[in-house]
Amino acid sequence: MTDNYVFSLPIAVRDYELDSEGIVNNAVYLHYFEHTRHAFCVERGFPFAQMAAEGIIPVVNRIEVDYRVPLRSGDVVDSKLRVDLRGVRFVFSQDLYLSGTDTLVAKAVVSVVAIENGRLSRGERFKPYLLQ
Amino acid sequence: MTDNYVFSLPIAVRDYELDSEGIVNNAVYLHYFEHTRHAFCVERGFPFAQMAAEGIIPVVNRIEVDYRVPLRSGDVVDSKLRVDLRGVRFVFSQDLYLSGTDTLVAKAVVSVVAIENGRLSRGERFKPYLLQ
Amino acid sequence: MTDNYVFSLPIAVRDYELDSEGIVNNAVYLHYFEHTRHAFCVERGFPFAQMAAEGIIPVVNRIEVDYRVPLRSGDVVDSKLRVDLRGVRFVFSQDLYLSGTDTLVAKAVVSVVAIENGRLSRGERFKPYLLQ
Amino acid sequence: MTDNYVFSLPIAVRDYELDSEGIVNNAVYLHYFEHTRHAFCVERGFPFAQMAAEGIIPVVNRIEVDYRVPLRSGDVVDSKLRVDLRGVRFVFSQDLYLSGTDTLVAKAVVSVVAIENGRLSRGERFKPYLLQ
Repeated sequence: MTDNYVFSLPIAVRDYELDSEGIVNNAVYLHYFEHTRHAFCVERGFPFAQMAAEGIIPVVNRIEVDYRVPLRSGDVVDSKLRVDLRGVRFVFSQDLYLSGTDTLVAKAVVSVVAIENGRLSRGERFKPYLLQ
Repeated sequence: MTDNYVFSLPIAVRDYELDSEGIVNNAVYLHYFEHTRHAFCVERGFPFAQMAAEGIIPVVNRIEVDYRVPLRSGDVVDSKLRVDLRGVRFVFSQDLYLSGTDTLVAKAVVSVVAIENGRLSRGERFKPYLLQ
Repeated sequence: MTDNYVFSLPIAVRDYELDSEGIVNNAVYLHYFEHTRHAFCVERGFPFAQMAAEGIIPVVNRIEVDYRVPLRSGDVVDSKLRVDLRGVRFVFSQDLYLSGTDTLVAKAVVSVVAIENGRLSRGERFKPYLLQ
Repeated sequence: MTDNYVFSLPIAVRDYELDSEGIVNNAVYLHYFEHTRHAFCVERGFPFAQMAAEGIIPVVNRIEVDYRVPLRSGDVVDSKLRVDLRGVRFVFSQDLYLSGTDTLVAKAVVSVVAIENGRLSRGERFKPYLLQ
Protein backbone atom coordinates (compact mmCIF):
# COMPACT_ATOMS: atom_id res chain seq x y z
CA MET A 1 0.00 0.00 0.00
CA THR A 2 1.18 3.45 -0.92
CA ASP A 3 -0.70 5.32 1.66
CA ASN A 4 0.39 7.39 4.63
CA TYR A 5 -2.60 6.91 6.86
CA VAL A 6 -2.48 8.67 10.23
CA PHE A 7 -5.31 6.77 11.91
CA SER A 8 -6.97 3.36 11.74
CA LEU A 9 -10.08 2.08 13.48
CA PRO A 10 -11.52 -1.44 13.32
CA ILE A 11 -15.29 -1.43 12.65
CA ALA A 12 -17.40 -4.59 12.74
CA VAL A 13 -20.49 -4.78 10.54
CA ARG A 14 -23.69 -4.84 12.60
CA ASP A 15 -26.51 -6.92 11.16
CA TYR A 16 -29.04 -4.07 11.31
CA GLU A 17 -26.83 -2.24 8.80
CA LEU A 18 -27.56 -4.84 6.13
CA ASP A 19 -30.28 -4.14 3.63
CA SER A 20 -32.60 -6.63 2.00
CA GLU A 21 -29.84 -7.74 -0.39
CA GLY A 22 -27.82 -8.91 2.60
CA ILE A 23 -25.10 -6.28 2.09
CA VAL A 24 -24.32 -3.12 4.03
CA ASN A 25 -26.43 -0.24 2.69
CA ASN A 26 -24.48 2.47 0.86
CA ALA A 27 -25.53 5.17 3.35
CA VAL A 28 -24.04 3.23 6.26
CA TYR A 29 -20.56 3.74 4.86
CA LEU A 30 -20.96 7.47 5.56
CA HIS A 31 -21.65 6.56 9.18
CA TYR A 32 -18.45 4.49 9.23
CA PHE A 33 -16.49 7.39 7.74
CA GLU A 34 -17.96 9.94 10.18
CA HIS A 35 -17.41 7.67 13.16
CA THR A 36 -13.77 7.26 12.09
CA ARG A 37 -13.21 11.02 11.76
CA HIS A 38 -14.73 11.61 15.19
CA ALA A 39 -12.63 8.83 16.77
CA PHE A 40 -9.57 10.40 15.14
CA CYS A 41 -10.45 13.80 16.67
CA VAL A 42 -10.85 12.13 20.08
CA GLU A 43 -7.42 10.54 19.74
CA ARG A 44 -5.95 13.90 18.80
CA GLY A 45 -7.45 15.48 21.92
CA PHE A 46 -10.25 17.55 20.36
CA PRO A 47 -13.48 15.54 20.66
CA PHE A 48 -16.67 16.50 18.91
CA ALA A 49 -18.45 17.37 22.18
CA GLN A 50 -15.71 19.90 22.98
CA MET A 51 -16.03 21.44 19.50
CA ALA A 52 -19.76 21.85 20.11
CA ALA A 53 -19.09 23.40 23.52
CA GLU A 54 -16.79 25.94 21.83
CA GLY A 55 -19.38 26.77 19.15
CA ILE A 56 -17.44 25.04 16.37
CA ILE A 57 -19.44 22.86 14.01
CA PRO A 58 -17.67 20.70 11.43
CA VAL A 59 -19.88 20.40 8.34
CA VAL A 60 -19.37 17.98 5.44
CA ASN A 61 -19.63 19.92 2.18
CA ARG A 62 -18.62 17.25 -0.34
CA ILE A 63 -18.22 13.52 -0.37
CA GLU A 64 -17.07 11.02 -2.99
CA VAL A 65 -17.23 7.30 -2.39
CA ASP A 66 -16.14 4.40 -4.57
CA TYR A 67 -17.69 1.15 -3.44
CA ARG A 68 -15.49 -1.81 -4.39
CA VAL A 69 -16.42 -4.87 -2.35
CA PRO A 70 -19.82 -5.36 -0.69
CA LEU A 71 -19.75 -5.90 3.08
CA ARG A 72 -21.71 -8.76 4.62
CA SER A 73 -22.68 -10.10 8.03
CA GLY A 74 -19.60 -10.93 10.08
CA ASP A 75 -17.20 -8.69 8.14
CA VAL A 76 -14.77 -6.38 9.96
CA VAL A 77 -13.01 -3.48 8.28
CA ASP A 78 -9.99 -1.38 9.12
CA SER A 79 -11.13 2.19 8.57
CA LYS A 80 -8.10 4.37 7.76
CA LEU A 81 -7.67 8.05 7.11
CA ARG A 82 -5.32 10.88 6.38
CA VAL A 83 -6.15 14.59 6.26
CA ASP A 84 -4.95 17.68 4.39
CA LEU A 85 -5.91 21.33 4.58
CA ARG A 86 -6.86 22.90 1.23
CA GLY A 87 -7.88 26.50 1.68
CA VAL A 88 -10.64 26.43 4.27
CA ARG A 89 -11.44 22.75 3.68
CA PHE A 90 -10.15 19.80 5.65
CA VAL A 91 -9.96 17.02 3.09
CA PHE A 92 -10.08 13.51 4.56
CA SER A 93 -8.98 10.55 2.45
CA GLN A 94 -10.75 7.59 3.98
CA ASP A 95 -10.34 3.99 2.93
CA LEU A 96 -11.86 0.78 4.24
CA TYR A 97 -9.98 -2.53 4.04
CA LEU A 98 -11.16 -6.00 4.98
CA SER A 99 -9.57 -6.45 8.38
CA GLY A 100 -5.93 -7.41 8.25
CA THR A 101 -5.84 -7.60 4.44
CA ASP A 102 -5.03 -5.36 1.46
CA THR A 103 -8.54 -5.81 0.05
CA LEU A 104 -9.95 -2.35 -0.53
CA VAL A 105 -13.66 -2.25 0.34
CA ALA A 106 -14.37 1.43 -0.28
CA LYS A 107 -12.45 4.60 -0.98
CA ALA A 108 -13.73 8.05 -0.03
CA VAL A 109 -12.74 11.69 -0.12
CA VAL A 110 -14.65 13.78 2.40
CA SER A 111 -14.38 17.55 2.50
CA VAL A 112 -15.25 19.28 5.77
CA VAL A 113 -15.47 22.97 6.66
CA ALA A 114 -15.67 24.47 10.13
CA ILE A 115 -18.51 26.78 11.07
CA GLU A 116 -17.64 28.94 14.08
CA ASN A 117 -20.42 30.93 15.66
CA GLY A 118 -22.44 30.65 12.48
CA ARG A 119 -19.67 31.73 10.10
CA LEU A 120 -17.25 29.85 7.87
CA SER A 121 -13.91 29.58 9.65
CA ARG A 122 -10.36 28.98 8.44
CA GLY A 123 -10.23 26.10 10.90
CA GLU A 124 -7.46 27.63 13.03
CA ARG A 125 -8.75 25.81 16.11
CA PHE A 126 -8.47 22.44 14.35
CA LYS A 127 -5.03 22.79 12.85
CA PRO A 128 -2.93 22.13 15.97
CA TYR A 129 -4.87 18.93 16.57
CA LEU A 130 -5.50 17.49 13.13
CA LEU A 131 -2.41 18.52 11.17
CA GLN A 132 0.36 17.40 13.48
CA MET B 1 -33.27 25.76 -13.94
CA THR B 2 -31.54 24.13 -16.85
CA ASP B 3 -32.28 20.59 -16.01
CA ASN B 4 -34.35 17.94 -17.70
CA TYR B 5 -35.47 15.99 -14.69
CA VAL B 6 -37.69 12.99 -15.36
CA PHE B 7 -38.96 12.47 -11.82
CA SER B 8 -39.62 14.51 -8.69
CA LEU B 9 -40.60 13.38 -5.20
CA PRO B 10 -41.39 15.58 -2.20
CA ILE B 11 -39.57 14.43 0.95
CA ALA B 12 -40.20 15.96 4.37
CA VAL B 13 -37.38 16.01 6.91
CA ARG B 14 -38.10 13.74 9.87
CA ASP B 15 -36.78 14.95 13.21
CA TYR B 16 -34.96 11.68 13.96
CA GLU B 17 -32.80 12.42 10.90
CA LEU B 18 -31.30 15.48 12.58
CA ASP B 19 -27.97 15.13 14.31
CA SER B 20 -26.80 16.95 17.42
CA GLU B 21 -26.11 20.09 15.39
CA GLY B 22 -29.80 20.27 14.52
CA ILE B 23 -29.20 19.59 10.83
CA VAL B 24 -29.88 16.50 8.74
CA ASN B 25 -26.89 14.15 8.97
CA ASN B 26 -24.90 13.78 5.75
CA ALA B 27 -25.61 10.03 5.52
CA VAL B 28 -29.36 10.62 5.52
CA TYR B 29 -29.10 12.32 2.11
CA LEU B 30 -28.09 8.94 0.66
CA HIS B 31 -31.34 7.55 2.06
CA TYR B 32 -33.26 10.37 0.35
CA PHE B 33 -31.47 9.68 -2.94
CA GLU B 34 -32.07 5.91 -2.73
CA HIS B 35 -35.71 6.37 -1.76
CA THR B 36 -36.14 8.66 -4.78
CA ARG B 37 -34.55 6.17 -7.18
CA HIS B 38 -36.76 3.38 -5.86
CA ALA B 39 -39.91 5.54 -6.11
CA PHE B 40 -38.90 6.36 -9.67
CA CYS B 41 -38.59 2.64 -10.49
CA VAL B 42 -42.03 2.03 -8.98
CA GLU B 43 -43.50 4.79 -11.15
CA ARG B 44 -41.85 3.27 -14.21
CA GLY B 45 -43.39 -0.11 -13.42
CA PHE B 46 -40.32 -2.01 -12.21
CA PRO B 47 -40.32 -1.92 -8.41
CA PHE B 48 -37.38 -3.02 -6.32
CA ALA B 49 -39.25 -6.04 -4.92
CA GLN B 50 -39.83 -7.31 -8.46
CA MET B 51 -36.14 -6.85 -9.30
CA ALA B 52 -35.27 -8.94 -6.25
CA ALA B 53 -37.79 -11.59 -7.28
CA GLU B 54 -36.10 -11.78 -10.69
CA GLY B 55 -32.63 -12.10 -9.17
CA ILE B 56 -31.56 -8.59 -10.21
CA ILE B 57 -29.75 -6.52 -7.62
CA PRO B 58 -28.97 -2.86 -8.30
CA VAL B 59 -25.71 -1.94 -6.53
CA VAL B 60 -24.35 1.57 -6.02
CA ASN B 61 -20.70 1.63 -7.10
CA ARG B 62 -19.91 5.36 -6.87
CA ILE B 63 -21.50 8.39 -5.32
CA GLU B 64 -20.62 12.09 -5.29
CA VAL B 65 -22.56 14.57 -3.20
CA ASP B 66 -22.20 18.33 -2.89
CA TYR B 67 -23.95 19.63 0.19
CA ARG B 68 -25.02 23.26 -0.28
CA VAL B 69 -27.70 24.22 2.25
CA PRO B 70 -28.19 22.39 5.56
CA LEU B 71 -31.65 20.92 6.13
CA ARG B 72 -33.47 21.57 9.41
CA SER B 73 -36.61 20.49 11.24
CA GLY B 74 -39.71 21.29 9.20
CA ASP B 75 -37.94 21.50 5.84
CA VAL B 76 -39.38 19.78 2.78
CA VAL B 77 -37.38 19.10 -0.37
CA ASP B 78 -38.27 18.28 -3.95
CA SER B 79 -35.99 15.37 -4.82
CA LYS B 80 -35.43 15.30 -8.60
CA LEU B 81 -33.56 12.98 -10.88
CA ARG B 82 -32.59 12.09 -14.40
CA VAL B 83 -30.74 9.01 -15.56
CA ASP B 84 -28.31 8.07 -18.34
CA LEU B 85 -26.70 4.81 -19.33
CA ARG B 86 -22.91 4.90 -19.65
CA GLY B 87 -21.53 1.50 -20.54
CA VAL B 88 -22.88 -0.85 -17.89
CA ARG B 89 -23.55 1.94 -15.41
CA PHE B 90 -26.85 3.72 -14.83
CA VAL B 91 -25.81 7.23 -13.83
CA PHE B 92 -28.41 9.13 -11.83
CA SER B 93 -28.15 12.90 -11.47
CA GLN B 94 -30.06 13.69 -8.31
CA ASP B 95 -30.70 17.16 -6.95
CA LEU B 96 -32.60 18.35 -3.90
CA TYR B 97 -34.35 21.72 -3.85
CA LEU B 98 -36.15 23.43 -1.00
CA SER B 99 -39.77 22.70 -1.80
CA GLY B 100 -41.25 24.94 -4.46
CA THR B 101 -38.07 27.05 -4.80
CA ASP B 102 -34.90 27.15 -6.91
CA THR B 103 -32.72 26.82 -3.81
CA LEU B 104 -30.38 23.91 -4.41
CA VAL B 105 -29.88 21.93 -1.20
CA ALA B 106 -27.64 19.15 -2.50
CA LYS B 107 -26.41 17.81 -5.82
CA ALA B 108 -25.45 14.19 -6.37
CA VAL B 109 -24.25 11.83 -9.06
CA VAL B 110 -24.96 8.20 -8.25
CA SER B 111 -23.65 5.37 -10.37
CA VAL B 112 -25.48 2.05 -10.19
CA VAL B 113 -24.71 -1.32 -11.76
CA ALA B 114 -27.02 -4.30 -12.03
CA ILE B 115 -25.99 -7.66 -10.68
CA GLU B 116 -27.98 -10.50 -12.23
CA ASN B 117 -27.61 -13.94 -10.70
CA GLY B 118 -24.34 -12.88 -9.11
CA ARG B 119 -22.79 -11.41 -12.27
CA LEU B 120 -22.42 -7.90 -13.60
CA SER B 121 -25.14 -7.27 -16.16
CA ARG B 122 -25.51 -4.78 -19.02
CA GLY B 123 -28.81 -3.77 -17.46
CA GLU B 124 -30.94 -4.95 -20.39
CA ARG B 125 -33.87 -5.63 -18.08
CA PHE B 126 -33.82 -2.02 -16.78
CA LYS B 127 -33.53 -0.19 -20.06
CA PRO B 128 -37.16 -0.43 -21.23
CA TYR B 129 -38.32 0.97 -17.89
CA LEU B 130 -35.71 3.57 -16.95
CA LEU B 131 -34.63 4.98 -20.30
CA GLN B 132 -37.95 5.79 -21.92
CA MET C 1 -62.20 -0.50 15.43
CA THR C 2 -62.89 0.61 18.97
CA ASP C 3 -60.39 3.36 19.18
CA ASN C 4 -60.67 7.08 19.56
CA TYR C 5 -57.60 8.15 17.67
CA VAL C 6 -56.97 11.89 17.42
CA PHE C 7 -54.40 11.80 14.63
CA SER C 8 -53.48 9.64 11.64
CA LEU C 9 -50.50 9.85 9.30
CA PRO C 10 -49.83 7.69 6.25
CA ILE C 11 -46.24 6.38 6.17
CA ALA C 12 -44.79 4.46 3.22
CA VAL C 13 -42.09 1.89 3.85
CA ARG C 14 -38.75 2.95 2.38
CA ASP C 15 -36.59 0.15 1.04
CA TYR C 16 -33.53 1.19 3.09
CA GLU C 17 -35.61 0.41 6.20
CA LEU C 18 -35.71 -3.28 5.30
CA ASP C 19 -33.22 -5.60 6.90
CA SER C 20 -31.64 -8.66 5.37
CA GLU C 21 -34.81 -10.69 5.98
CA GLY C 22 -36.68 -8.31 3.67
CA ILE C 23 -38.85 -6.93 6.47
CA VAL C 24 -38.77 -3.55 8.21
CA ASN C 25 -36.29 -3.71 11.11
CA ASN C 26 -37.87 -3.51 14.57
CA ALA C 27 -36.01 -0.30 15.45
CA VAL C 28 -37.51 1.51 12.45
CA TYR C 29 -40.97 1.29 14.02
CA LEU C 30 -39.74 3.63 16.75
CA HIS C 31 -38.84 6.10 14.02
CA TYR C 32 -42.37 5.77 12.61
CA PHE C 33 -43.87 6.34 16.05
CA GLU C 34 -41.66 9.36 16.78
CA HIS C 35 -42.30 10.88 13.36
CA THR C 36 -46.05 10.50 13.97
CA ARG C 37 -45.87 12.19 17.40
CA HIS C 38 -43.89 15.07 15.94
CA ALA C 39 -46.30 15.47 13.00
CA PHE C 40 -49.15 15.49 15.53
CA CYS C 41 -47.44 18.28 17.50
CA VAL C 42 -46.99 20.25 14.27
CA GLU C 43 -50.69 19.86 13.49
CA ARG C 44 -51.56 21.03 16.99
CA GLY C 45 -49.42 24.14 16.54
CA PHE C 46 -46.46 23.29 18.77
CA PRO C 47 -43.69 21.91 16.55
CA PHE C 48 -40.58 20.24 17.91
CA ALA C 49 -38.30 23.08 16.76
CA GLN C 50 -40.36 25.56 18.79
CA MET C 51 -40.14 23.31 21.85
CA ALA C 52 -36.37 23.27 21.47
CA ALA C 53 -36.31 27.05 21.07
CA GLU C 54 -38.23 27.34 24.36
CA GLY C 55 -35.86 24.97 26.17
CA ILE C 56 -38.40 22.17 26.37
CA ILE C 57 -37.17 18.68 25.54
CA PRO C 58 -39.62 15.78 25.26
CA VAL C 59 -37.89 12.58 26.37
CA VAL C 60 -39.19 9.03 25.89
CA ASN C 61 -38.93 7.19 29.20
CA ARG C 62 -40.74 3.94 28.38
CA ILE C 63 -41.87 2.15 25.28
CA GLU C 64 -43.79 -1.08 24.66
CA VAL C 65 -44.31 -2.44 21.17
CA ASP C 66 -46.20 -5.49 19.98
CA TYR C 67 -45.21 -6.46 16.48
CA ARG C 68 -48.05 -8.29 14.72
CA VAL C 69 -47.53 -8.25 10.94
CA PRO C 70 -44.13 -7.76 9.28
CA LEU C 71 -43.87 -4.82 6.88
CA ARG C 72 -42.37 -5.32 3.43
CA SER C 73 -41.31 -3.30 0.41
CA GLY C 74 -44.23 -1.34 -1.01
CA ASP C 75 -46.34 -1.39 2.17
CA VAL C 76 -48.03 1.76 3.44
CA VAL C 77 -49.36 2.13 6.98
CA ASP C 78 -51.79 4.47 8.65
CA SER C 79 -50.03 5.54 11.83
CA LYS C 80 -52.62 6.54 14.44
CA LEU C 81 -52.38 7.90 17.95
CA ARG C 82 -54.19 9.15 20.98
CA VAL C 83 -52.65 10.70 24.08
CA ASP C 84 -53.42 10.89 27.80
CA LEU C 85 -51.73 12.66 30.69
CA ARG C 86 -50.89 10.42 33.66
CA GLY C 87 -49.11 12.38 36.35
CA VAL C 88 -46.14 13.97 34.62
CA ARG C 89 -46.16 11.50 31.74
CA PHE C 90 -47.78 11.97 28.35
CA VAL C 91 -48.82 8.46 27.35
CA PHE C 92 -49.25 7.95 23.62
CA SER C 93 -51.15 4.92 22.34
CA GLN C 94 -49.83 4.41 18.83
CA ASP C 95 -51.08 1.82 16.38
CA LEU C 96 -50.09 1.03 12.82
CA TYR C 97 -52.59 -0.40 10.33
CA LEU C 98 -52.03 -1.54 6.77
CA SER C 99 -53.29 1.43 4.80
CA GLY C 100 -57.04 1.58 4.46
CA THR C 101 -57.59 -1.72 6.29
CA ASP C 102 -58.28 -2.98 9.82
CA THR C 103 -55.11 -5.10 9.79
CA LEU C 104 -53.12 -4.16 12.86
CA VAL C 105 -49.39 -4.12 12.08
CA ALA C 106 -48.03 -2.97 15.43
CA LYS C 107 -49.35 -1.60 18.69
CA ALA C 108 -47.30 0.63 20.98
CA VAL C 109 -47.54 2.56 24.22
CA VAL C 110 -44.98 5.34 24.46
CA SER C 111 -44.48 7.34 27.62
CA VAL C 112 -42.90 10.79 27.28
CA VAL C 113 -41.85 13.31 29.90
CA ALA C 114 -40.97 16.95 29.35
CA ILE C 115 -37.63 18.32 30.50
CA GLU C 116 -37.70 22.10 30.85
CA ASN C 117 -34.41 23.85 31.41
CA GLY C 118 -32.85 20.61 32.58
CA ARG C 119 -35.60 19.69 35.06
CA LEU C 120 -38.60 17.38 34.90
CA SER C 121 -41.70 19.42 34.14
CA ARG C 122 -45.41 18.81 34.65
CA GLY C 123 -45.84 19.50 30.96
CA GLU C 124 -47.97 22.62 31.45
CA ARG C 125 -46.72 24.05 28.16
CA PHE C 126 -47.89 20.97 26.26
CA LYS C 127 -51.34 20.60 27.72
CA PRO C 128 -53.15 23.33 25.77
CA TYR C 129 -51.85 21.85 22.53
CA LEU C 130 -51.91 18.10 23.04
CA LEU C 131 -54.94 17.57 25.29
CA GLN C 132 -57.61 19.52 23.45
CA MET D 1 -26.41 -6.37 41.05
CA THR D 2 -28.74 -9.30 41.34
CA ASP D 3 -28.57 -10.44 37.81
CA ASN D 4 -27.27 -13.58 36.21
CA TYR D 5 -26.21 -12.21 32.86
CA VAL D 6 -24.73 -14.71 30.42
CA PHE D 7 -23.20 -12.21 27.99
CA SER D 8 -21.80 -8.68 28.01
CA LEU D 9 -20.68 -6.50 25.12
CA PRO D 10 -19.13 -3.02 25.35
CA ILE D 11 -20.76 -0.55 22.93
CA ALA D 12 -19.46 2.98 22.38
CA VAL D 13 -21.90 5.72 21.43
CA ARG D 14 -21.32 6.97 17.88
CA ASP D 15 -21.99 10.65 17.32
CA TYR D 16 -24.34 10.04 14.37
CA GLU D 17 -26.62 8.23 16.83
CA LEU D 18 -27.29 11.47 18.71
CA ASP D 19 -30.39 13.43 17.89
CA SER D 20 -30.82 17.18 17.94
CA GLU D 21 -31.10 17.15 21.74
CA GLY D 22 -27.57 15.78 21.92
CA ILE D 23 -28.70 12.44 23.34
CA VAL D 24 -28.89 9.01 21.74
CA ASN D 25 -32.25 8.63 19.97
CA ASN D 26 -34.63 6.11 21.55
CA ALA D 27 -34.71 3.94 18.42
CA VAL D 28 -30.94 3.46 18.50
CA TYR D 29 -31.24 1.47 21.73
CA LEU D 30 -33.06 -1.21 19.75
CA HIS D 31 -30.03 -1.37 17.48
CA TYR D 32 -27.79 -1.81 20.54
CA PHE D 33 -30.04 -4.57 21.85
CA GLU D 34 -30.18 -6.38 18.50
CA HIS D 35 -26.44 -6.08 17.96
CA THR D 36 -25.90 -7.57 21.42
CA ARG D 37 -28.23 -10.51 20.75
CA HIS D 38 -26.50 -11.22 17.45
CA ALA D 39 -23.02 -11.00 19.05
CA PHE D 40 -24.25 -13.41 21.72
CA CYS D 41 -25.40 -15.88 19.03
CA VAL D 42 -22.00 -15.58 17.33
CA GLU D 43 -20.27 -16.36 20.64
CA ARG D 44 -22.53 -19.37 21.13
CA GLY D 45 -21.61 -20.66 17.67
CA PHE D 46 -24.84 -19.98 15.79
CA PRO D 47 -24.39 -16.69 13.90
CA PHE D 48 -27.24 -14.88 12.21
CA ALA D 49 -25.86 -15.58 8.71
CA GLN D 50 -25.94 -19.32 9.42
CA MET D 51 -29.54 -19.06 10.65
CA ALA D 52 -30.47 -17.34 7.40
CA ALA D 53 -28.65 -20.02 5.42
CA GLU D 54 -30.72 -22.67 7.22
CA GLY D 55 -33.99 -20.83 6.55
CA ILE D 56 -34.45 -19.78 10.17
CA ILE D 57 -35.49 -16.19 10.79
CA PRO D 58 -35.60 -14.82 14.33
CA VAL D 59 -38.39 -12.21 14.56
CA VAL D 60 -38.94 -9.76 17.41
CA ASN D 61 -42.61 -9.92 18.43
CA ARG D 62 -42.60 -7.73 21.56
CA ILE D 63 -40.25 -5.24 23.14
CA GLU D 64 -40.38 -3.21 26.35
CA VAL D 65 -37.75 -0.61 27.15
CA ASP D 66 -37.32 1.60 30.20
CA TYR D 67 -35.02 4.49 29.51
CA ARG D 68 -33.30 5.66 32.69
CA VAL D 69 -30.22 7.75 31.88
CA PRO D 70 -29.72 9.56 28.57
CA LEU D 71 -26.58 8.62 26.64
CA ARG D 72 -24.31 11.34 25.27
CA SER D 73 -21.26 11.73 23.05
CA GLY D 74 -18.32 9.78 24.44
CA ASP D 75 -20.38 7.39 26.58
CA VAL D 76 -19.67 3.67 26.55
CA VAL D 77 -22.12 1.08 27.84
CA ASP D 78 -21.83 -2.55 28.90
CA SER D 79 -24.72 -4.27 27.14
CA LYS D 80 -25.71 -7.37 29.11
CA LEU D 81 -28.25 -10.09 28.55
CA ARG D 82 -29.77 -13.32 29.74
CA VAL D 83 -32.32 -15.46 27.95
CA ASP D 84 -35.18 -17.79 28.86
CA LEU D 85 -37.52 -19.92 26.80
CA ARG D 86 -41.23 -19.39 27.49
CA GLY D 87 -43.36 -21.54 25.23
CA VAL D 88 -42.22 -20.72 21.71
CA ARG D 89 -40.71 -17.37 22.70
CA PHE D 90 -37.08 -16.66 23.53
CA VAL D 91 -37.28 -13.87 26.09
CA PHE D 92 -34.14 -11.76 26.37
CA SER D 93 -33.60 -9.55 29.41
CA GLN D 94 -31.23 -6.86 28.20
CA ASP D 95 -29.75 -4.13 30.35
CA LEU D 96 -27.31 -1.33 29.56
CA TYR D 97 -24.93 0.02 32.20
CA LEU D 98 -22.52 2.92 31.96
CA SER D 99 -19.23 1.14 31.36
CA GLY D 100 -17.66 -0.30 34.47
CA THR D 101 -20.36 1.10 36.80
CA ASP D 102 -23.67 0.00 38.34
CA THR D 103 -25.50 2.90 36.68
CA LEU D 104 -28.43 1.42 34.79
CA VAL D 105 -28.96 3.27 31.50
CA ALA D 106 -31.83 1.24 30.08
CA LYS D 107 -33.66 -1.99 30.81
CA ALA D 108 -35.39 -4.05 28.15
CA VAL D 109 -37.33 -7.25 27.69
CA VAL D 110 -37.27 -8.51 24.11
CA SER D 111 -39.36 -11.44 22.97
CA VAL D 112 -38.23 -13.28 19.85
CA VAL D 113 -39.83 -16.13 17.92
CA ALA D 114 -38.21 -18.29 15.28
CA ILE D 115 -39.74 -18.61 11.84
CA GLU D 116 -38.54 -21.72 10.02
CA ASN D 117 -39.40 -22.04 6.36
CA GLY D 118 -42.19 -19.52 6.79
CA ARG D 119 -43.78 -21.16 9.85
CA LEU D 120 -43.57 -20.47 13.57
CA SER D 121 -41.10 -22.90 15.12
CA ARG D 122 -40.56 -24.16 18.66
CA GLY D 123 -36.97 -22.99 18.32
CA GLU D 124 -35.46 -26.46 18.62
CA ARG D 125 -32.49 -25.42 16.51
CA PHE D 126 -31.69 -22.54 18.89
CA LYS D 127 -31.97 -24.35 22.18
CA PRO D 128 -28.62 -26.19 22.17
CA TYR D 129 -26.84 -22.90 21.48
CA LEU D 130 -28.75 -20.31 23.50
CA LEU D 131 -29.89 -22.23 26.57
CA GLN D 132 -26.67 -23.88 27.71
